[in-house]
This record gives sequence, structure tokens and C-alpha cells, in this order.
Amino acid sequence: MPAKPKSISMKFAELLKGEAAQESALVGQYCFGLAKELWPINRSLTGPGVRQTLDILRRELPGLTLHSVPSGSQVLDWTVPDEWSVREAWIEDADGRRLVDFADNNLHLVGYSEPFEGWVERDVLERHLHSLPEQPLAIPYVTSYYRRDWGFCVSHEHRQTLGQGPFKVNIDSSLEPGQLDYGELVIPGESRKEVLLSTYVCHPSMANNELSGPVVATALGRWLAAQDRLKYTYRLVFAPETIGAIAYLSRKIDHLREHVTAGFLLTCLGDERSYSYVPSRASDTIADRVAQHVLKGIAPDYRKYTWLDRGSDERQFCAPRVDLPMASIMRSKYGEYPEYHTSLDTLGEVVTARGLQGGFDALHNAIHILENDIVTRTTVLGEPQLGKRGLYPTISTKHSVTAEVQTMMDVISYCDGRLSHFDIAEKLGLPFDRVQSICAPLMEAGLLEVVD
Amino acid sequence: MPAKPKSISMKFAELLKGEAAQESALVGQYCFGLAKELWPINRSLTGPGVRQTLDILRRELPGLTLHSVPSGSQVLDWTVPDEWSVREAWIEDADGRRLVDFADNNLHLVGYSEPFEGWVERDVLERHLHSLPEQPLAIPYVTSYYRRDWGFCVSHEHRQTLGQGPFKVNIDSSLEPGQLDYGELVIPGESRKEVLLSTYVCHPSMANNELSGPVVATALGRWLAAQDRLKYTYRLVFAPETIGAIAYLSRKIDHLREHVTAGFLLTCLGDERSYSYVPSRASDTIADRVAQHVLKGIAPDYRKYTWLDRGSDERQFCAPRVDLPMASIMRSKYGEYPEYHTSLDTLGEVVTARGLQGGFDALHNAIHILENDIVTRTTVLGEPQLGKRGLYPTISTKHSVTAEVQTMMDVISYCDGRLSHFDIAEKLGLPFDRVQSICAPLMEAGLLEVVD
Amino acid sequence: MPAKPKSISMKFAELLKGEAAQESALVGQYCFGLAKELWPINRSLTGPGVRQTLDILRRELPGLTLHSVPSGSQVLDWTVPDEWSVREAWIEDADGRRLVDFADNNLHLVGYSEPFEGWVERDVLERHLHSLPEQPLAIPYVTSYYRRDWGFCVSHEHRQTLGQGPFKVNIDSSLEPGQLDYGELVIPGESRKEVLLSTYVCHPSMANNELSGPVVATALGRWLAAQDRLKYTYRLVFAPETIGAIAYLSRKIDHLREHVTAGFLLTCLGDERSYSYVPSRASDTIADRVAQHVLKGIAPDYRKYTWLDRGSDERQFCAPRVDLPMASIMRSKYGEYPEYHTSLDTLGEVVTARGLQGGFDALHNAIHILENDIVTRTTVLGEPQLGKRGLYPTISTKHSVTAEVQTMMDVISYCDGRLSHFDIAEKLGLPFDRVQSICAPLMEAGLLEVVD
Repeated sequence: MPAKPKSISMKFAELLKGEAAQESALVGQYCFGLAKELWPINRSLTGPGVRQTLDILRRELPGLTLHSVPSGSQVLDWTVPDEWSVREAWIEDADGRRLVDFADNNLHLVGYSEPFEGWVERDVLERHLHSLPEQPLAIPYVTSYYRRDWGFCVSHEHRQTLGQGPFKVNIDSSLEPGQLDYGELVIPGESRKEVLLSTYVCHPSMANNELSGPVVATALGRWLAAQDRLKYTYRLVFAPETIGAIAYLSRKIDHLREHVTAGFLLTCLGDERSYSYVPSRASDTIADRVAQHVLKGIAPDYRKYTWLDRGSDERQFCAPRVDLPMASIMRSKYGEYPEYHTSLDTLGEVVTARGLQGGFDALHNAIHILENDIVTRTTVLGEPQLGKRGLYPTISTKHSVTAEVQTMMDVISYCDGRLSHFDIAEKLGLPFDRVQSICAPLMEAGLLEVVD
Repeated sequence: MPAKPKSISMKFAELLKGEAAQESALVGQYCFGLAKELWPINRSLTGPGVRQTLDILRRELPGLTLHSVPSGSQVLDWTVPDEWSVREAWIEDADGRRLVDFADNNLHLVGYSEPFEGWVERDVLERHLHSLPEQPLAIPYVTSYYRRDWGFCVSHEHRQTLGQGPFKVNIDSSLEPGQLDYGELVIPGESRKEVLLSTYVCHPSMANNELSGPVVATALGRWLAAQDRLKYTYRLVFAPETIGAIAYLSRKIDHLREHVTAGFLLTCLGDERSYSYVPSRASDTIADRVAQHVLKGIAPDYRKYTWLDRGSDERQFCAPRVDLPMASIMRSKYGEYPEYHTSLDTLGEVVTARGLQGGFDALHNAIHILENDIVTRTTVLGEPQLGKRGLYPTISTKHSVTAEVQTMMDVISYCDGRLSHFDIAEKLGLPFDRVQSICAPLMEAGLLEVVD
Repeated sequence: MPAKPKSISMKFAELLKGEAAQESALVGQYCFGLAKELWPINRSLTGPGVRQTLDILRRELPGLTLHSVPSGSQVLDWTVPDEWSVREAWIEDADGRRLVDFADNNLHLVGYSEPFEGWVERDVLERHLHSLPEQPLAIPYVTSYYRRDWGFCVSHEHRQTLGQGPFKVNIDSSLEPGQLDYGELVIPGESRKEVLLSTYVCHPSMANNELSGPVVATALGRWLAAQDRLKYTYRLVFAPETIGAIAYLSRKIDHLREHVTAGFLLTCLGDERSYSYVPSRASDTIADRVAQHVLKGIAPDYRKYTWLDRGSDERQFCAPRVDLPMASIMRSKYGEYPEYHTSLDTLGEVVTARGLQGGFDALHNAIHILENDIVTRTTVLGEPQLGKRGLYPTISTKHSVTAEVQTMMDVISYCDGRLSHFDIAEKLGLPFDRVQSICAPLMEAGLLEVVD
């Protein structure tokens, strides 16, 4: 287990006070270090692995509160499952040689495997083995949450070497009433309107899907907590995917429907190969528009998916009658990269500090827009006289109206008290920050005033 | 004259109780037989031919009521014309040889020809002859409803053989005050909202334009009358084109404007060459959307016309201030196939049982959507737990979420109490029945509830 | 100075009473003659040149009222500058040879040059010289309205010949409190709703930008004043660009916002090379739609600019919170033709009588649409019976429904009391006048009635 990334973390807290944060790779390094610390833990929907994970996140995010829902609780249409714990799990041959061992890789055991001990022949074992012929070196990630069963996952090459048996199988697990755990952090802003950031903590040792999500969420949380002033209140949720989101919604739906203005789902934020966007169900919320603006700026060739390509907790948060305005900003999307849901989705090969930095930056930029967007209007009728304020060239010839001045005048011409600066950026095909930096001196000069 | 198609008709009545009807070619055969029976009758805007036709249709549709409007009546902007009857009409040469005879083909006489008897030279006859040089074997269909005249129509080849005359011309017709006839059938449903099906009965012996219309309308009427339950009330109208539709509107406009939810114009439903669609004036009514959905399913290359290509009674039913939501579903459109309005538009060569079956099926499918479309919403917040209801695989691996499950989840994700199943089908590019069959077990399981 | 174009003007007044006006080139000749008279005057933002110009225009437009705003007045965000007068301005060499003389071309002196008298070396003179290396024969047009300075403009070839100096420079100008002048003409119509036509009078001897604007505005004013009946009230404004428009708005903004229904900016209306359109800020006002319709009719390849290509007084009239519905119809747009803002923008080479005629015609057509557009609806339900009114062929065969009748029926089918004749023209891709001439006999026959 790596040392706690304290030293990076300290620098980070300072860095994150300013804009410098995103320009540096330190945030990516912080995320990478935290992911290494979380890597070996055997997370699942429930059980000690989730609690260990949340404890580490609480160390990084002091205000994080932990919550639990008892097994058997009805949450919306679902029932919280029993808690799953694994002490050991292995397959041995007749000579006592350990052929497969959960201790080597927590993907070896099918998630939610029930306890089993006994000798089985190869044909019986076969029915409990999972491998991927087309990816012979990958251990697949398999779960059986809602049907009692047991099983082992091995690489297809490994599977060929197991011999004919008989095999001694030992799964010392328990499936007993316990609880489902999740963490929540509220960072208050000036408005009671909220931005919701949701990520999940229920996968064992896989890096892009899932560790990149919680570690970038943690970095965002630290950055937000370090701000002197926030317009919106931020709510960060770390819960198991699907059942955790459902349990969370079952407790918070009324509050969320009333307060959430925009939100983002944080997953698959760590590789360097691409940027991706999955829309909300409505597909045209402010979160959707901002996500696309940011990605167009960072990576014009970003992959734009549709609602029909969804696959994570937008299925809950954007379900009919829930309909929170939440979009997904990702690097390479779940299901779309070859290492997805296998032992090949690793820190180092797939997820890098630079990849995580890119994921953080995209979300940082999106939040930056939400925080800073305003509606302004000109205080004067007709074009303002920029010359007398030193904002405009005083001699006019055929060629003197430069592109810069033209863009400034274009922006002013749309400051009509209806379009926001973000709207204007979209309309003019400009980066949001360009519009902001054009308007700042105009506001200072009293030529633009904020509306609302 | 063919035998009455009784035996087919009996089977048909039974068949039409179930969905099997449209899968069989028996409906097409029924329509074809009925068209053969109607073929020889000399229909026009008014006169005994229309009444003979309506009598036969009433035999097939017992509830059909017959109505008449006296000649000279003002109907909207029009006046009901005198009734036209023809006893005989022919041209003979000096040797008494019969050169052209209405008894051979009722297209030989210009519609609404006034009585005439006398000897004429070739040059005079010429002014009363109609033929199509570019279709030398076709007798054209010509009428002169609103200007008193007489004339004969012959094939261009025939015209070359008539000789120099003199000719004895005898038209024993009468144009006298009488009435305009139409038939109406109301099949009550649970709602007072109506679906209007309109077709016309004013053309002599031509098959696609027009016999296909009234025979498919009759088959639809029989099928509707055989249903145990209908959501909408159906109103079928068999009237002469234009003046009949106008006369009908003059009596029913207030009722129709209040009750008609959707409607279809039934014409040109019998050949096998293509499917066609002409929109309502508004072009985006539910009838338009359903017509296009159905045709896309049956024939993705169907011909999509615009309001500017209109040419039948949508000119009345969709006129400004009438604006009934009526679209046309056709096989090959009037004016767009070479045999249109000539003696070549025959049963057998142009119109077939299979072609008629296709026309029936398209309208059947459209009505099927109107009858069965509903708005539902999920009863639970968040995604439903399908596994515990046996509706979802319980083990999840990289590859197990099959396309079928994905489509089911996509459909559920749009059941938001606002979109109807038809809307969802359009949104997902699925056939309406696919959405229905996905939703049926979900409704049974209580996961979806009907809204409204 | 050319003779006053009285004789043309007289004929013109007569011609302009009828539609014949635009078909004749006489309007273009009138405009050209008036432009020749205005050519030599040294116009600027203020000063005697503007007043001379307005006096000539008042002779042509008897109702034109003259207005002034004192120097130093605060007008919206701007201050009316001191009045600028030039008596003489020249550069001489040591031998007293006149090298550059304002009397030769009023572009030689930078606009708003302050007085200066003295001997300067070439290096000092250089800092006060303007020329265009890429257009070596052109004298550029340069102004320095809001920074006190002096300067001379010469062709780049001329600049090479000036020698090393020393130079005697004499600018006998004055910049003293005075006034800003503008002219306004109101031609009352039946409605208090107004059409605003704005042009500018602040450029020295240049033809397309600017003389084409005021002379076409004058011709339009004469044509409007000669009408027996106008639906709208017309307001013509002749003011210096920018500061004049701002001064005018500062006095009239409330009135204009309440009454102006549509408007056009009149500039660059005199060459023969192209037609151009710059939209209002909203870009979809009735002025925008009409401008595009007219230009599509005259020159299907007209240049369609966007709001971001604006550059004249739409910057004031369409500014946020002013937002008058004003579009620009032009020949070759300012900034887009090589002679723009140089001594090459001449009468004869760039601007011609034919070019001015085309500019007049485009605006005439736009006003013609605004004046004559109406909303009608059919007085009868269903299609009208055109035959009995002699408006429709009485014998129907396959080929007799001609394209003309079809278009007539299409137009009627859209006369629904909601779409205006202009809307219908756009919908059917027809010229507005075609729709008008189709509807006229229908209205006469009582088949269409005006709504509102």
C-alpha cells in the first residue's frame, strides 16, 4: 500500500486557491496517489471495502458525512441487499496447489459470491468459471448481485492450465444483513441552488472505471472547499452505483428536485485517449450545454454520445419523474475502451496522472462557467463611446478596426439583458473566458450592468 | 356481371375478428371481388349509377345510411347539378354500322353529355371527340359537369378508323332535376371523438381511381364493425368527389370540426407499384404522423408528396376554415401512373387482390395505432428492478446486456407521462408494435401506468 | 458644379405617381444628377458642408425639417463635437510650389484636422501623412473625430514625389462650438405605425459610400410624397453617421420604439456589381424578411451578410434596448468593394444612374410589399366554385389543369385568415406580386375577404 499522499495534498490545498490549480499537473498527481491508496480495497455494493474507501475519502474531505441504509430496506423499487464480506476464496487442485486466489486479485471472485466449500469436478467448476476468450490475458469483472450463486473469474489463458480436477473450492464469504454505505459532502455557497456531483464507490481494483471518478470528485471537493466564495451550493455524493444512487434518491429526491440547477456524473475520468459526453435525458439542460462547450474547447473531436448510450447513474438521476439536469463529462467512456470491466483497467497503463488532470480540468472548467456566468446589459442606449474611456482606437481608417475591437463590439451588441455571457459565447463561437475578459473592463467602466 | 362475392364475404367476417385478417390475402380477394361487381356500373356525380353502387355497398355494410341532396341545392359555394342518366349513346356510319357504343365501355361518353340526335359531318364530330395521341390504345376519361356539351371518347387508334362520315350520333341521355346521393356509416366507439374515412363513388369503369377506394373502405368498415371494442367512433363516407364532399360538409361541418380527431382519404389503394402519402394542409396532424410511420414500416421508399400535390377531397376537407386533420395513404397516386383516368386503369392489369390487400393493410395499421396509442409513465422513481420480476438477466457481464434489454430500457426511459407510445416509437425509430409489446408486460407488472 | 437637375426632377414628379417609375431609368438619372450636385461639398460630422447638403435636399423634399443639436450636448453616451470648418489647407515646398491642396480634393485633409501653420521637416510630415501602398492611386479617407490632430491624405504615388522638405503646412480650419445638423421628413399615412428610412450625410466626395444613400432616400421621399394614399407613415432621416444617429435617437427613441414597424438603412445603393443585405440584430423582423424576398427576386445571388458584418447605423438603431426592426438593402456593401473609403469611389466609375436605379427599385419593392401586404381568408368553406365565375376551365381532362390554375388554387388554399399574402408568397416560393395578382380578382369576386 502506498504512503498516504500527504505532501502532495498539502501543496494542493494551497494551489487550489487560485486558477493555477488546473494549469499544473499536481492535481493529477494527487488524484493518482489517492487512487493508488484506494486500489487494493475490495469494494462491492456493500461491505467493509466501501467503508474503508469512504474513511480514506473523509480524511481528504473533512466535511464528508457517512450514511447507511440497513439491508432489506425498500428503496424506491429496489431492496438494499445483504452485506457481503470475503475473508478468503480460492481453488486448489488435489495436490493442494493454489490455482486461483482472491488474495492475488479481488476480481478473481464473482461479486456477491455466496459461501461454498467442497470438492468439485471440472465440469461443475466450468459452470462457475468466467473468462474472456477474445481477451485471453484479462480477468473479467463479474457480479451476481440479485441471484445467489458463486463463481471465479480468470484469464482465458489461466483457465486452460487448470487441469481436470477434482478441485477444492473454498469461498469463505458471508452474505448477512448489514448496511449500504454512502458519503455526502455539502459545500455551501451563496445560493441555496445546488450543483450535484455524483460518483460511485462499488468496484474492486479497476482504475478508469471506477477509481478515477471518486478521486477526481475528491480533488474537486477540495478545490471547492478552498474557495472564498461560491455562488452555488455544491453537493458531492459517493455511493455504490445503481442501488446506492437509488438509496440516495429515496432519501433526497424532494430536496434535489427543488434545488439542483445542474449536475455532473463523475466516472471514467482518468485515461488520456479521448474526451466524452453523455447527455441528460432532456439533453439540453445547462449542464449539457456547459459540458459540450467545455469539451469543444479542450478537445474539438470529443465523443458526443446520446441518451441511448447512457449506462451509469444518469439512469437513476435522469429517470422519468426524477429528471435532474445532470450530464456526464468523461475521458474514455465505460464500455467503449478495451480494458473496461477487466483486470487490464489499471493505474499506470490506462489511468495516468495526466489523464486524471485532464478529467479534473474539464469539470473544473464546467463549474467555472456555472459559477461565473451572468446576464448583463448595456447601460447606455446605442453603442457606447469607447474612445473616451480609452477602450477604442481614436483614428479610423480603412484598416484600423481590428478583429479584437470587432469581437468586443460583437459581444457588446448581444449584452441585451436576456442573453448570458455563456449564451453569447455560444452564439459567437468564442470561449466563455474570452467573453468574460471582454466584458470585465466594460463592467468596470460602468458600460454593462448585471441583470437579476 | 360477376357473382356476388358472398362466400368470401362470410369467411371474411369471421377472419376480421382477429389480427389474422391483415396477414391473409383474403381481404384483398374480397375487395377485388367487390370491385368486379361494381365495375360495369356507369357512375357519375349523380344518377342511377351512384345509387346502384351504394345499394351494393349497403348490402356489405348493413348500417350504411343513404342520403340525398336535391339538384339545385346550394351547398357551400356550389350548386348540386341536375341528375344525369344515359340510356344509350352511339355513333353509326351511313351504312348503320355502330362505330362507337357506350354499351361497350361507359368511358366512351363524355360525362354529363346532354342529349343529342342527328347527322354530323366529320369536322363537326371532331369537335366532340377526345383521344390521347400519346396513349393510342387508351380511351380517356372526360367530363363536362358545369358546361352543357356532348362528346365521345375513343382510343386514338380507333379515332383513325372512323372514316369521313356523315355520322349518325345518338345520345339518349337526360339531365333533369334529381338528387345527389351519398352513403354514411357510423360505427360507435367508446369516445365521441371520431376518425373520419372518406372515399368517392363517382367514376365509371376505372379500377385504381376509383374502385379501390370504396372497396377498401368497405373492408375497413366490416373489420371495424366486427370489433368488440373501439376507442374512437368511426365515420365512413361514400360520396361523389368534390361536389359530394362539399354537399356532405355543408351538412356536417360543425359536427366534424368538433369531433374529428384524425381521418384518412381513401383513394388509389389497389395497385402493387408503390405506396404514397399526401399530407393534410397542416401537414403535421396525428393522421399525418401516423400515415408516415405506417408507410415507413411497410415501404421505406414510399412517395412522400406535399400539400401542393393534393388533388382529391383533401381540397375540401382540409380547406381553410374547414381544416380537418386528414391525410391520404395511397398505393400509386392519382395523376402519377400512366393508366390514370383512362380505360387502361383496369382490374387485373393495374389493380390486383394483392395490391388491394396492401392498401387495406396500410390503413388497418394506421387505425391500429390510433386505437392503441396511450401515454404511460413509470410507477417507480429511478429504474425499475426488472430482475425480481423475471424481466431482466440476473448476472451482469460485459456482454450480457443484450440489445433487447437495451431497447426495453430505452423505452422505459421515455415513459414519462408526456410522450405517448407512438411518440416513443418515433423517437427511437422503432415500429409502434415493438413499443407496445415491450410495454405490455411492464404494464401488467404494474411498472407502467396509463396517464389520462 | 453641375446645373440643378430641375428638368429631370419635374418629369420625375409626374412619373412617380405611377408604377412606371421604377421601370424607367429616369429615377436613376435623377439620383445621379442630384449626386453630382452634392459631390463637391466638404461634408463631415458637422459644419457648413452638412448644412449646404441639407439645404439642397430640402429643395427636393419640400417638407424636410432641419434640426440642430449644440456642440457639447450629451447625446446618449456621446458628446456632440465642436463644429469643424475648413477655409483652406495645403502643403508647399520651400519654393512655394503647392504639393497638396484641399481645394483639389476634400479627401486630402484628415477629417476634423485642427488648425496648423508652420514649416516641418519630412520626418515630421511623415507622421501626418496617410496613403495606401496597396492602392497607389487612391487618396484614402481618414478622420480623427475624437483625438485632436491634423493630417493629410495623398495617393501613395503622390507621396513618393513630395521631396525631402522642409514643407510649409497651412491648415486654416476651425474647431469651435457650433452644432450638429440633421434633416427629417415625415410623410403621413393612414396608420400611426411608421416605416423609418435612415441615411447619412457626413462624408466628403465619395459616391457609393455615401452619396448614393441620401439621393436614393430623396427619390423615395419624392415617390412617397406623390402617393395618394399610404398605409404607413414614413419617416426619413438624413443625419451624420453614428453621432447623428445617436443624437437623433436621443431625441426620438421613445417615439420610435412605440411606432416603428419596419425600417431600412440606406447606404451603398449606387454601383452595379451586386446586391447585399445586412440583417437587423434580431435578424427575423418583417424588414429582414421583406429585404430578403425582394433581393431574391432581383438578384438570386445577392450577398447575405450577418449581424456580425454590420458596420453602419444599425449599430445604433438595432443596439440592445433600442432594437428597431431595421435591415440594410444595399448594392455593394461598405468595406467590401475596393474603392471604399478612397478617392476612387466616384460618380461614373463606381456609381452609375443604372446602379442607383437598381438601389431605388429594391427599396421601392420592399416598401411596396409593406404597403400592400394583407391577410385574407376565403369567404366560402371548401374550395370556391371558380367555374361559375369564369375563373376556371369548365372541361376537365387529364391535362387541362394548367400550372396557372394550380398556383391559383395553391394560393387560395393558404388564404386562411392567418397567413398574409407575403407569408403565402414565401411559402410557395412565388413573387409577392404574383400572389397579389392572383388574389385581386378573387377579392373582387368576393371569394377572399380581408382580415383585421
